Amino acid sequence: MAIPVASTTLSRTESINLGALSLVCVAVLVRTLEGDGEPLIASLALSGFAFAATYATIRWLGPTFIKAGLKGRDLSKVNNSHYLPECMGAVCAIVYLLIIIVFIPFPFYKDIVVATSGGGNRDVVMNVEFVEKGRLLHKFPHSKVCLSPSSSSIGSYKQYSPEYTLATNKNPLQLASFLSAIISLQSITLLGIGDDLFDIRWRHKFFIPAFASIPLLIIYFVDFGVTSIVLPTFLQPYVGRELFDLGILYYGYMAAFCIFSPNSINILAGINGIEVTQSIVIALLLAFNDALYLFTPYPHPATDSHLFSLFFLLPFLGVSFALLYHNWYPARVFVGDTYCYFAGMVFVVVSILGHFSKTLILLLIPQIFNFVYSVPQLFGLVPCPRHRLPHFNARTGLLEPSVTKWDKEKQPHPIIAKALHLLAQFRLLRLKQDEDGRIEETSNFTILNLWLVWRGPMREDRLAIEITVMQTLVGLFGLFVRHRLALLIFREDNLSIRSAV
Amino acid sequence: MAIPVASTTLSRTESINLGALSLVCVAVLVRTLEGDGEPLIASLALSGFAFAATYATIRWLGPTFIKAGLKGRDLSKVNNSHYLPECMGAVCAIVYLLIIIVFIPFPFYKDIVVATSGGGNRDVVMNVEFVEKGRLLHKFPHSKVCLSPSSSSIGSYKQYSPEYTLATNKNPLQLASFLSAIISLQSITLLGIGDDLFDIRWRHKFFIPAFASIPLLIIYFVDFGVTSIVLPTFLQPYVGRELFDLGILYYGYMAAFCIFSPNSINILAGINGIEVTQSIVIALLLAFNDALYLFTPYPHPATDSHLFSLFFLLPFLGVSFALLYHNWYPARVFVGDTYCYFAGMVFVVVSILGHFSKTLILLLIPQIFNFVYSVPQLFGLVPCPRHRLPHFNARTGLLEPSVTKWDKEKQPHPIIAKALHLLAQFRLLRLKQDEDGRIEETSNFTILNLWLVWRGPMREDRLAIEITVMQTLVGLFGLFVRHRLALLIFREDNLSIRSAV
Repeated sequence: MAIPVASTTLSRTESINLGALSLVCVAVLVRTLEGDGEPLIASLALSGFAFAATYATIRWLGPTFIKAGLKGRDLSKVNNSHYLPECMGAVCAIVYLLIIIVFIPFPFYKDIVVATSGGGNRDVVMNVEFVEKGRLLHKFPHSKVCLSPSSSSIGSYKQYSPEYTLATNKNPLQLASFLSAIISLQSITLLGIGDDLFDIRWRHKFFIPAFASIPLLIIYFVDFGVTSIVLPTFLQPYVGRELFDLGILYYGYMAAFCIFSPNSINILAGINGIEVTQSIVIALLLAFNDALYLFTPYPHPATDSHLFSLFFLLPFLGVSFALLYHNWYPARVFVGDTYCYFAGMVFVVVSILGHFSKTLILLLIPQIFNFVYSVPQLFGLVPCPRHRLPHFNARTGLLEPSVTKWDKEKQPHPIIAKALHLLAQFRLLRLKQDEDGRIEETSNFTILNLWLVWRGPMREDRLAIEITVMQTLVGLFGLFVRHRLALLIFREDNLSIRSAV
Repeated sequence: MAIPVASTTLSRTESINLGALSLVCVAVLVRTLEGDGEPLIASLALSGFAFAATYATIRWLGPTFIKAGLKGRDLSKVNNSHYLPECMGAVCAIVYLLIIIVFIPFPFYKDIVVATSGGGNRDVVMNVEFVEKGRLLHKFPHSKVCLSPSSSSIGSYKQYSPEYTLATNKNPLQLASFLSAIISLQSITLLGIGDDLFDIRWRHKFFIPAFASIPLLIIYFVDFGVTSIVLPTFLQPYVGRELFDLGILYYGYMAAFCIFSPNSINILAGINGIEVTQSIVIALLLAFNDALYLFTPYPHPATDSHLFSLFFLLPFLGVSFALLYHNWYPARVFVGDTYCYFAGMVFVVVSILGHFSKTLILLLIPQIFNFVYSVPQLFGLVPCPRHRLPHFNARTGLLEPSVTKWDKEKQPHPIIAKALHLLAQFRLLRLKQDEDGRIEETSNFTILNLWLVWRGPMREDRLAIEITVMQTLVGLFGLFVRHRLALLIFREDNLSIRSAV
């Protein structure tokens, strides 16, 4: 079971396949430009590109990364003397950012130019006839006006000139949202690379995503500024209204969310492929949720938000699948903290700007469980070793739960000991005692170790598959809860046409 | 003349001074928020902050950078065995980006929310009375409408509701421009760090800024799309009109500009402080040029462009002065390619989005000269060593022109030899011949070596000062040409109220 030494060139088959995929994507993109310019198709084609570009670039850049010191050894393999390139998530992130920037004109081209006579801040004053007219595509709001019926002051403009209002009301703002999302993602990439490079201490790096959330919060503040939430029906009689203004707390909520999501993916890590597969599952479920809004027979007010979300998720899936190929067991590259932060931030960005952050929480249940379960070690109640990844048994080739040893003289505080025994009783921990009832060792507090406690030793790839399947099932259940059961506590749901339109 | 070993903590005096500066900036910022929210004052206060933050962070992070392999030795010093931290421009760039993101609400807050009932793409439909009203600041266009009188279709909206039109016509677009500028600057930072980390080959890294220009060009395309230029008066009779549409060539021009400006600063480098001082001079001259438009007694149509430009230049000056302190002779840190690229991109961004790229060209004359002068070596007509920085004479402690040696057997092509002799005759080269007339050595083709050929050996700091003074004088002359002589070849100038308003 030797680790394959990383090849740095594409094989002939790979070259042909990637070349063919790129050609198909170019063809689709050209057809998109010739036709009406359907941005969803363009996004799909660009995501195909993103896959091919990431796949090839990761292969090519391996030795460069190792030379620059971005390297690590795979501790869960028999022959682990080779260095593998680390921080390959940075390649994903940069390809992603380039693709998403190139994509901008597809949804936004021309809507704005026509509406504003070209920006108005040029040195030389232009006559209106000089302004390039171009095709009037109006791609983004899809000629479907979904303003609230009660926004009457804007409605009157609409009657005055529907085309003009359509463009100025919605698109410049959505462009600003789109750009702010890109800025947040670029920020997290920069900070993630800094983290991988400088090996920042755990306590400090926890707040890295907070910095990257600043552009998102700032532009939310400038752009929307709405901080009211809908109260569950059973709370409404007590508060006396349907909406409750959280004010500055809402920004706190969003910031906490920005900190949590990237970190929660970063701590559910340690075996080949798991960072990428969990991110792919979450992205696929979010995309599935978005698709529910697109293929409704009636126009839905949240369609734009979910289109917006798809535009960000599709290229993310493209780069992630390419990374997964290289990172899957036995891994030839590592993803680095950059990828985990980046993935978490993509989810935050689409869910905050698309206003479905509660849905994302439902998809992050395994991550939330893993975080809550980790708290005793993260906050120092139980000693936390540098690495908590499952223990590799070189004799069997299987992974086993890794453990924290307890010294005979340094037993836990009685209360903690009691809690540990309680957890062990509920099979939420493996605990080994000596004959005097002193704790010898406890398994480490991560979902991966717990899974191994439950299911017994298994090979690394099998563990990754089982956790991924669990993530998928929990996520599907979460979406079911969100769409079927939400009406029990809220008067309106996104899918209920009666109350939303 | 020992190199001071980098201290990693701030001295007491430094702490007090930086603390006091930060306090003053906070006070000014709070007053700004209390009052009318004048964004120019806020920008100044944040730039002071940026200085303090950069100054302290560069000091603190030195050992971290060295540990991560970002280090280099100063070849122009007697005692050059110490490693100094390299790539400190990355710290500048990241502080700058954070500051400019935090700055966004000052010019843009509330203008947009009021105009759009809060974005319009929320899941739950809102009634207009729920939209948070806030203070109506209208900071950006300064309640001064500067649309062209001929844009009549927009004018009629303005009469309908001046407030609404003001906000939607101008601000969402300027916000998009602002954000696209940030994206370009983040891109160049990411790519610059990649360059410093991976030591990319010269031929490849030349095109790094091209990638960073993509967001700028894309958003220019989506946002303005105007590709016409004003023809000089003497050409107008031949073409038959005043404006000439360059079409796609205009994007080529902008891309070339994006590639040239960062690279031109990157190749005028090699002695302590020179990268930073030249950037500071250019930024100060651009800011001076901007100020010309702000303090006019009459409202000028380009005021917004130049306000926009100042908002980007002031924090840049803040971080650059802090970097200069650490990078000035004898340097305790190096700036890295990141800083040069970043600085060049700041200039490109403000001049393209502010539509004064021709002015920037006038300020880059020394860089253009240096590039043209370097061409023989860059394109391989004359052998190009890895480093062309001036030669340090350890005996005298002075810098001398560095040279390319010519082998007796490997003399240049006769035509090139003739050209070299010609250059030497015009004192544009130092050339050493043996008694048989064969070329023994020629000075390297950089402006720094040429300056040493002209002025004789001198100490490193003196060379930096002289080149900086030269840059300042040439730039001031360029601005004089731009404002006094432009009317000779163009019918209108930015400062001539008669024709522009």
